Amino acid sequence: MTSIADQLAKKQKEISVSEFFERNRQILGFDSATKALIMAVKEAVDNALDACEEAGYLPEIMVKLDRVDEKEFHLTVEDNGPGIVPGMIPNVFGRLLFGSRFHAIRQSRGQQGIGISATVMYGQITSGKAARITSKTEKDKPAAVKEIMLNTKTNSPVETGEKDKYIMWDEKEHGTRVEINLAGRYIASRQSVLEYLKQTAIVNPHASIIFVDPDGKKSIFNRATDKLPPCTKEIRPHPEGIELGTLMNMGRASRTRNLRDFLKTDFSRVSERVANEICERAKLSESIKTPSMRLEQYKSLLGAMQSMKYLPPQTDCLSPIGEALIRKGLKNVLDETKPEFYSPPVSRAARVYAGNPFQVEVGIVYGGNLTADQQVTILRFANRVPLLYQQGACALTRSIEAVDWRRYGLEQRGGEGIPYGPAIIMVHLASTKVPFTSEAKEAVASIPEIQAEIELALRECGRRLKVHLNKKETKSKTRAKFEIVQEILPLIAQKSAKIVGRPVPQLHGSITKIMNVVWVEDEVKYDKKKHHITINIWNYTPRTVRFNLHAVLPAGSFEMEGAEPQPIEIKEDGKVTWELRHIKATEKSEVKFALLGLDPELYDENELYASGIDPTNIIGADPLPGDWDVQRLSVTEVAAPELAEAVVEEEEEIDYDEQKEALSDD
Amino acid sequence: MTSIADQLAKKQKEISVSEFFERNRQILGFDSATKALIMAVKEAVDNALDACEEAGYLPEIMVKLDRVDEKEFHLTVEDNGPGIVPGMIPNVFGRLLFGSRFHAIRQSRGQQGIGISATVMYGQITSGKAARITSKTEKDKPAAVKEIMLNTKTNSPVETGEKDKYIMWDEKEHGTRVEINLAGRYIASRQSVLEYLKQTAIVNPHASIIFVDPDGKKSIFNRATDKLPPCTKEIRPHPEGIELGTLMNMGRASRTRNLRDFLKTDFSRVSERVANEICERAKLSESIKTPSMRLEQYKSLLGAMQSMKYLPPQTDCLSPIGEALIRKGLKNVLDETKPEFYSPPVSRAARVYAGNPFQVEVGIVYGGNLTADQQVTILRFANRVPLLYQQGACALTRSIEAVDWRRYGLEQRGGEGIPYGPAIIMVHLASTKVPFTSEAKEAVASIPEIQAEIELALRECGRRLKVHLNKKETKSKTRAKFEIVQEILPLIAQKSAKIVGRPVPQLHGSITKIMNVVWVEDEVKYDKKKHHITINIWNYTPRTVRFNLHAVLPAGSFEMEGAEPQPIEIKEDGKVTWELRHIKATEKSEVKFALLGLDPELYDENELYASGIDPTNIIGADPLPGDWDVQRLSVTEVAAPELAEAVVEEEEEIDYDEQKEALSDD
Repeated sequence: MTSIADQLAKKQKEISVSEFFERNRQILGFDSATKALIMAVKEAVDNALDACEEAGYLPEIMVKLDRVDEKEFHLTVEDNGPGIVPGMIPNVFGRLLFGSRFHAIRQSRGQQGIGISATVMYGQITSGKAARITSKTEKDKPAAVKEIMLNTKTNSPVETGEKDKYIMWDEKEHGTRVEINLAGRYIASRQSVLEYLKQTAIVNPHASIIFVDPDGKKSIFNRATDKLPPCTKEIRPHPEGIELGTLMNMGRASRTRNLRDFLKTDFSRVSERVANEICERAKLSESIKTPSMRLEQYKSLLGAMQSMKYLPPQTDCLSPIGEALIRKGLKNVLDETKPEFYSPPVSRAARVYAGNPFQVEVGIVYGGNLTADQQVTILRFANRVPLLYQQGACALTRSIEAVDWRRYGLEQRGGEGIPYGPAIIMVHLASTKVPFTSEAKEAVASIPEIQAEIELALRECGRRLKVHLNKKETKSKTRAKFEIVQEILPLIAQKSAKIVGRPVPQLHGSITKIMNVVWVEDEVKYDKKKHHITINIWNYTPRTVRFNLHAVLPAGSFEMEGAEPQPIEIKEDGKVTWELRHIKATEKSEVKFALLGLDPELYDENELYASGIDPTNIIGADPLPGDWDVQRLSVTEVAAPELAEAVVEEEEEIDYDEQKEALSDD
Repeated sequence: MTSIADQLAKKQKEISVSEFFERNRQILGFDSATKALIMAVKEAVDNALDACEEAGYLPEIMVKLDRVDEKEFHLTVEDNGPGIVPGMIPNVFGRLLFGSRFHAIRQSRGQQGIGISATVMYGQITSGKAARITSKTEKDKPAAVKEIMLNTKTNSPVETGEKDKYIMWDEKEHGTRVEINLAGRYIASRQSVLEYLKQTAIVNPHASIIFVDPDGKKSIFNRATDKLPPCTKEIRPHPEGIELGTLMNMGRASRTRNLRDFLKTDFSRVSERVANEICERAKLSESIKTPSMRLEQYKSLLGAMQSMKYLPPQTDCLSPIGEALIRKGLKNVLDETKPEFYSPPVSRAARVYAGNPFQVEVGIVYGGNLTADQQVTILRFANRVPLLYQQGACALTRSIEAVDWRRYGLEQRGGEGIPYGPAIIMVHLASTKVPFTSEAKEAVASIPEIQAEIELALRECGRRLKVHLNKKETKSKTRAKFEIVQEILPLIAQKSAKIVGRPVPQLHGSITKIMNVVWVEDEVKYDKKKHHITINIWNYTPRTVRFNLHAVLPAGSFEMEGAEPQPIEIKEDGKVTWELRHIKATEKSEVKFALLGLDPELYDENELYASGIDPTNIIGADPLPGDWDVQRLSVTEVAAPELAEAVVEEEEEIDYDEQKEALSDD
């Protein structure tokens, strides 16, 4: 007699990873014909960019879509990367979970070894045809051509074409061409191949991308810079947040002589002193050999490691977009909408989650022709790759939803959710390991450390938006008052004079008495490789005024030219102070200077403060924060130092355990 | 000289599937300590329920969480399933992508062969300890005990404990006990182990579940029925939406003699006639052998197959929750909130996406103590498993967001997004293959066919809600008018009479002239296994009225008892008609009856219509739809047939290609 368990046992079997994904291709992002086309382009382009950067070549990428029939497309993606040695081609394109970057701790677009093989698999499922790879690795050699299919039962490549086929490919010194036939649907709307490539070009301005659409229409995204982003460096794991299992695996595989060496050598940011301290706290001998350590010893070690403070991770493993580029990128997308305000982009310092370094960058754009009555537009990027899908599932979105935007001038029901208003919010996450929610890499998982960082960056951006909106509001109110006073008062004076038969009185004094403000109006123009800044100060008070005017210029390498009057102080971190003496009632004063050597995108709005004057009497410059001297200020940091303090407090207050709970709660 | 390609080639290597998930466990749902605990319980309980149902046993499941230290828990999940033969235990628990249900086309909770092994892996990563499995497969035999770890480099199980260990396990005839140590965080809030088990109990009322929390507090969910849901049957693939790759794989692997036999035998819903027609349309010989067919022939075959209409799939492969259970479930959760309205749950007929049958069920609850000022609560279920996470990423949510709820009485900005109001919306998707967005099975991917079905079901529910709200509003307005008229008119009469010194006039006539309505007030009570229905009809018109009153009772097996007056017609589909003659002005008439044999949950609000009377003169019963006789009506169908027509139209209007585009657009 066989038991039910025996009968059931007969059905048990192993499933190959490709069989799994063949049946679950929505997990890979191939869940509709439109999306499949974008995914295929994305996987091939990500690979091309990674390969070019790894080899130190400025990427030149060509993407072409040809219609085969009503449902089928022929996709060609060509790059000038280093090529792939012929022996590796079958595995790279015909085996899921095969790749070179999986174990490397540094930022790259592809890491999983799934994307391109998944695309080949999708192509063969829907078109029945093999992918064709052409690869040239050296200038004077011919290019290898291989036709690859994927045996999904075994997750292994099958070469279907002629063996050892080579062709001449003279127009390229090296490079790879990938051709895949696949079912798809071509659209030209918001979520499209073109949009994906456009956004890719924005955050990869060192790449040239050409796209030929199915109707033969060519779109060219020329590179905006000849400078490759610095090649990201592989680092060792950071000890913060490392996990027991990982620690044990590392310890058992380590070739170091003893525990102290293991800590010093196999981790980053662990010095000899720190290593000794960890051993002491763990009550473990420094000379114990890690492969022989028992579970309980590893637990003590982990506890000791987590009780220490470490330097933040090195940042050369990361490749953030950078302020200038974020601005340029945003301006690029928004050219026609002419927004009134670009928040200075906020780049946070690198942090760590579970031993993985990451860095967030955030920018906000406001006003102009942007639609006021809808949810704000969200632009998400991870490791310089635009994320077009799964916005609702993404931690980047969730961070935006978690901020109370009502405080920063946007409309938001109950202070949570995506805010409404004429704004675009951009978030970029750079990490050695972006924690995607699925293999399709469309959304970032809710990691408390990441969300907390993004929220801090967003609040900082939000504050700047609010400052801008406040300034705008005060100015417009005061301006209205001005106009009324300046138009009506003279009329009244004339009428009254006529009635009583006296001469029209001088009104300057009365107008200024009524207004009683110093009006600051500033402007930035970029011309002939210089930023030209003009600040006009009108004294609409009945007194002579005297005060100090302060501007915050971007910290770093720029040169100030032709300042008039000369500032009384220029600090290294970009803070500049002018002394304005004796501006008489109803008179105007002017401050002028030019800035050299700054990226045009990096400076387009002055940040002005005033001291030595009653803040209620000045419009257009905020009161100087009290700790101007102690608090380091830069564009990347915080506009108003009292806010910076608030940030620090908030940072200290974070309870990650609580956060974890709150964040998982989606 | 080695080329860059050569250098890069050295780094290429295969990644084991477990290594991949070890580094990407957020994809498996283990992305926070709180969530990890819920995921672990979920995977083990899903397996237990599937095993019991497969073997035909009423599930008895015990879940226990013990605290090991500050971070670590010991999880025990015990079932009375058929057990697992000892030889299979290592692979089932220690190898990812190993299982018995992956290729079966029928509804089950687990299918991927990932969940429980992933939990074992997470446990070992975070606790360093092996999982322990105890399994008893036959009454008189001892239980096998195995300790399993997972070698992530090779994705294979390692037995760490004593070999061939057996123990006596007398309290169970058969069953499995899974014990896993893992890092976690126990909370008792909305997204918690307890909540997960509670919702599981709701949609699996045939299961008994006991939960002992880390403080030793026991929660018992007793089974509400001794009837197992019918065991789902394996079916062959449905030809609708089948894909080229799948078709070619099937054709090449088929053991049938020729193309006609292949179509008839390897697909469901393909008759000899249909098979012949397909061959003809494809211009292929019926006797061609499928393994020898070429790509172009398969493409013709696919085209022909997709041009045909098929019967919808058999539904015995699915296990929907059913109306009674949905109501019971919702009432269970909502006991304390006492909602004023439970929409009759809408179960749509089974449909197909990409060859996979599916069925959606939807319910809405409104009012009572539910919070009016927040977003509605969404309860999502897939194959009888509650989905607690990733609400924003889920097609079930997206369908809710796509409906213009303003038409149905809920608040919603711009007619899209999650509506606001005192309501709960429940959606269940049953399918032989639920297209989850990731291995964590937390959200359903945007499949146009599925979303379209859910939207149709939601609109149907929405219309009923609107009917309810309209009725409520009309009644309350009329009631207010009544009260005013009835209070004030007599006072005016008295005063006037006093002033003019005449007797107070009879007002019945005047009041009814002013009101001029027939007022219908109905009530349902459940007592002594009967539903007692009373319908009161007041004639507040100045005339004697006569009209027909119609009620829609649930179609199917119930008995009507003690009806007074006797209905003039009772139809099989539940439509009942009374003739009400001669209700004199200001007089009242009554209709009473009882219903036997109905689940108490299944009937709690009467659906009343009136004919033979001006609809503007009757409050509390809707005008009888014109096609009462031709249109089949049941609780599951549509309340008002003119709406049903609208539904059909909408169904016909669907352009899936357009939908696809729109839906991918998240």
